[in-house]
This record gives sequence, C-alpha cells and structure tokens, in this order.
Amino acid sequence: MDEFSRLAINQFTTLQQWSLSEAIEGYARHGVHAIGVLRDKLLEIGATEARRQLRAHDVKATCYCIGGLLTDSDPALFRANLEATRQAIDEAAEIEAGCMVFVAGGLPEGSRDLPAARSRCLDGLAELLPYAREAGVTVALEPLHPMICAFRSCLSTLGQANDWIEELGGGPELGIVVDVYHVWWDPDMEVEIERAAGRISSFHVCDWLLETTDLRLDRGMMGDGVIDIRRIRDLVEATGYSGCREVEIFSARNWWRRDPDEVVEITKARYLSEVNGPARTE
Amino acid sequence: MDEFSRLAINQFTTLQQWSLSEAIEGYARHGVHAIGVLRDKLLEIGATEARRQLRAHDVKATCYCIGGLLTDSDPALFRANLEATRQAIDEAAEIEAGCMVFVAGGLPEGSRDLPAARSRCLDGLAELLPYAREAGVTVALEPLHPMICAFRSCLSTLGQANDWIEELGGGPELGIVVDVYHVWWDPDMEVEIERAAGRISSFHVCDWLLETTDLRLDRGMMGDGVIDIRRIRDLVEATGYSGCREVEIFSARNWWRRDPDEVVEITKARYLSEVNGPARTE
Repeated sequence: MDEFSRLAINQFTTLQQWSLSEAIEGYARHGVHAIGVLRDKLLEIGATEARRQLRAHDVKATCYCIGGLLTDSDPALFRANLEATRQAIDEAAEIEAGCMVFVAGGLPEGSRDLPAARSRCLDGLAELLPYAREAGVTVALEPLHPMICAFRSCLSTLGQANDWIEELGGGPELGIVVDVYHVWWDPDMEVEIERAAGRISSFHVCDWLLETTDLRLDRGMMGDGVIDIRRIRDLVEATGYSGCREVEIFSARNWWRRDPDEVVEITKARYLSEVNGPARTE
Repeated sequence: MDEFSRLAINQFTTLQQWSLSEAIEGYARHGVHAIGVLRDKLLEIGATEARRQLRAHDVKATCYCIGGLLTDSDPALFRANLEATRQAIDEAAEIEAGCMVFVAGGLPEGSRDLPAARSRCLDGLAELLPYAREAGVTVALEPLHPMICAFRSCLSTLGQANDWIEELGGGPELGIVVDVYHVWWDPDMEVEIERAAGRISSFHVCDWLLETTDLRLDRGMMGDGVIDIRRIRDLVEATGYSGCREVEIFSARNWWRRDPDEVVEITKARYLSEVNGPARTE
C-alpha cells in the first residue's frame, strides 16, 4: 500500500479537460487508481467500454455520479428521471462502482413547495430500492449544501439523510456520501456522522474558499480554504469507514481551466499535506 | 389598524440610499411606522437623536442590528466586540428597540476550528446576558444561512439557536430572530420554530432568488424567489408571535441601486401580495 492507496479523484475535478478515457489513463499514469465516474462522461463510451478501460488501467470506480433528481411534480418528468436512475444503477453495476451517488433534486420549476418536493423524492427512492438491491448497487444519498437547495438538492443535511434512510426501512442497499464541502458547517455533523456508521459509502474532500464567488462551481483545493478536513476525516473513519478519500472539486474559475496533469499533481501533494496526515492541532 | 400595521422595514433594505434620519422620515411618509435600525447608521447621529426622530415620526424600532461577532481567539479583539455589544445593548435600550439582533461571527482569520469559535461565542453570550437583563433588552440570536458560516455566523440553524438558549439557561432576555432567507431550506424548520415558541423576537422576510449571484448581498424581493413565505409566517405566528413582519433585503445589484421611494412602494405592494395574504395553495 503506497501513500496514495486511499486517494481517489472524482472526474468533476477535471471536468472541462478530460473525457472518461483520458481521466482513467491520466489518473493511473499519476499513480491514482480510484476514480469517481460521471454518468455524462461514461455515456460517451458506454459502460462496457468504460469497464474495459478501468480494468486495463487497474483503476477502480469508487462511485458513479449521479442518479436521482426525483422531485418533479410533472409525472412524465418524474418517471423519466426514475427510469434514468434505473439505467444509472445498471451502469454502476457494470463498472462495479462502490455506489451510485443519489442527488435528490431541487424545487420543480415554478414551485415553492419544498415539503412536497421532499416527499416525492422519498417516494421515488422507495420505488428504486428493490431494483438497486437486485442489481447489488448501493444507492448513496448525498446531502448537498443548503445554498443549492432550490435548484439541486432538497436533501440538505446528514441528519435528513439518516432520517430518510430510517423512513425507507434501512436496507443494506442504502448508503450515505459525506462530502466535507456540504457538511462542514453543520452543528450536528459530529453526531450525524456517528449515526451514519456502517452506511458511509463515499467520503469526498475539497475546501471552502473564504471568497466563494459562485454557489455551485467555486470549490477550493484542500488547504486553500477553511475546512478542518482531517477532523472530519477522523470522524468518518472512526465509524469504520476504510474506503477512499475522494477529491471532488467543482471549479469553473480555476481548476477546470488548468492543465489537468498539473491539477492531478497538486491534488496528490495536497492530499498528503491536508488529508492524509495526522489531525491538525491549531 | 391598517393593512400595513404589521409591516416593518429593516434599514438594510435601503442601505445605500438613506441615512437613519432619511429612512425614519421616508418609511413614515409611506405609512410604514416600524423600522429595523442599523447600528452604523445610528452612530452617525447618536441614540438620543435617533430616539427623538423615531418619536417625532411615530416610528417604532423593531430591532437593532447588530451586536455580537464574539468568535475571535485574540483576547483583545474578543473583548472589543464584547464591549461594542454592551454599547449596542445600551443603544437598543435607549431607542426602545424590541430586541438587539445578535450575530455570532464566523471563523477568526486563519482558523479552521469551528467548534472552538462556537464555544467562544457561547462564553461571550453568557457574559453579556446579565448586562442585557439589567438593561431590559432582549438579545435575539439570529441563525444565518450556512453559506455564510465561514465569515459571518457560526450560528447556522434554528436548532442550534434553540440549543444555545437552553445551554445559556433560557432566561427571558434571550430571543430568536427567524429570517425566512436563512431557514427556508431547513428540514427541521417546522419543529424548531415550534420549539422557539415564546422566544421569537423578530420575523424577517425577503426571498431566495433562483439565480443567486452573491452569498451575502443578493437577496430578492418577496415574490421574486422560491420561498413559501406565508407558510413560514403561519408557522411563526402559530407560536403566538404577533409582532411585525420585517422586510430585510440585502441587494447590491438591484434594490440598493434603485430610488428608495420606489423600493418602499414596491415593498408595500409585495407585502400585501406575498406576506399578508392567506396561505398559498399551489
């Protein structure tokens, strides 16, 4: 096991630079053998070819992003996203991804009814679970930061994800994604990570920039912001989580504009200095 | 009681256009007789003169913004903000404000230790409370949206505010501000508003714009966004709250650039159409 054996990179980190084939080859060339795969990228080559390339480069798929968006009040839109999520589950199974990341969806166009959106999403999830169980795929609920509740995710906190899992019966096909960017501010983070013990399917890292200029696409490289990443890492790993620490950076103004090989090299360096070391003492 | 008897306007809504004197006179001229007063504006004329003008125009001060920012690890900075907050309490008493709004403060410069920042803020609050009680001023804790946790408020949810009040002993000098902008996304909003019954000192409204371009200064006018304002109003008022519905809009790109008389007129119209009517049915 080398020092990068638990490092994964999510394709979002090089979204604008690399196709899936390029990312698999590129990450592997830099010694990173775990990748979070994006569905849009995978569909350019298909799951069978993706699986072949992953194996050829000895790269494992940590998670598959995304399924979900099950909040529409229009039945046709709702069914279409349910069907797309079923397909995503099949694709996740084919590439042997550790989980399929489930993003809830925001408010439907023109609606202000958040409780109804949440309720529809839960109904959709309930309908999907037997399919996921059959496919052997973990549906990993990812709470996203409250600032993107309106247009992306009515699932906003770890507590809510834990509650949903209870409501859904707590089957083994249900997991949780902990992303430091989405949860670092949460006063209940510690207790809800503990509550998620045994369910954490994926652990994502990046950083919160003090001068954040965009609600969705301005995440920072680990070390450039204010998140105490190693504290959260310790909380997550104290639950027994032993999977990858996956770097996922949405960055329209910076990292997506840089040479992707440089991005991977800096990611590796920051992984060592900001994620992999002993807990910070201030 | 006319239809605007429960409308208040917070001075932030005309921050760039009007001084406190102009705002008192301007709001009153439009028939709005309740104002949320900003400390920076008040200090330009002093509390005694502010009180005189408020009385002369028959305008009441709903809340006084702000005291707090008690998260610094540097003892000198911490004491300075504690002292400023004591002064703010005195000023709030002098203008007979309904409460002093307490903003917690974010992470100190260079720090990533959020639990420590929260702990210092609680210590500072504990030290302030006897002073506030003596002055007869309610210290109203305002949880601010998680997206401004890093630089403005480590107090992020209503649940956390309720917890803090319990930890502080729950004295009568402790209140809570419910601002729809900060809490609308919260899956625990309903239960935590109920838990805050009898403590709600101030209720603020504006709207969440789907195309939010700035984390702090891009709030929308009621009706221009996605918050179900009347649902939250009903939750707040079901607790027995019978105070003002106070419009508070931070808007660097829009409302702060417009003619302030127009802003007040539109505020009044939207108050009637979006805040004061029966609950929405979609």
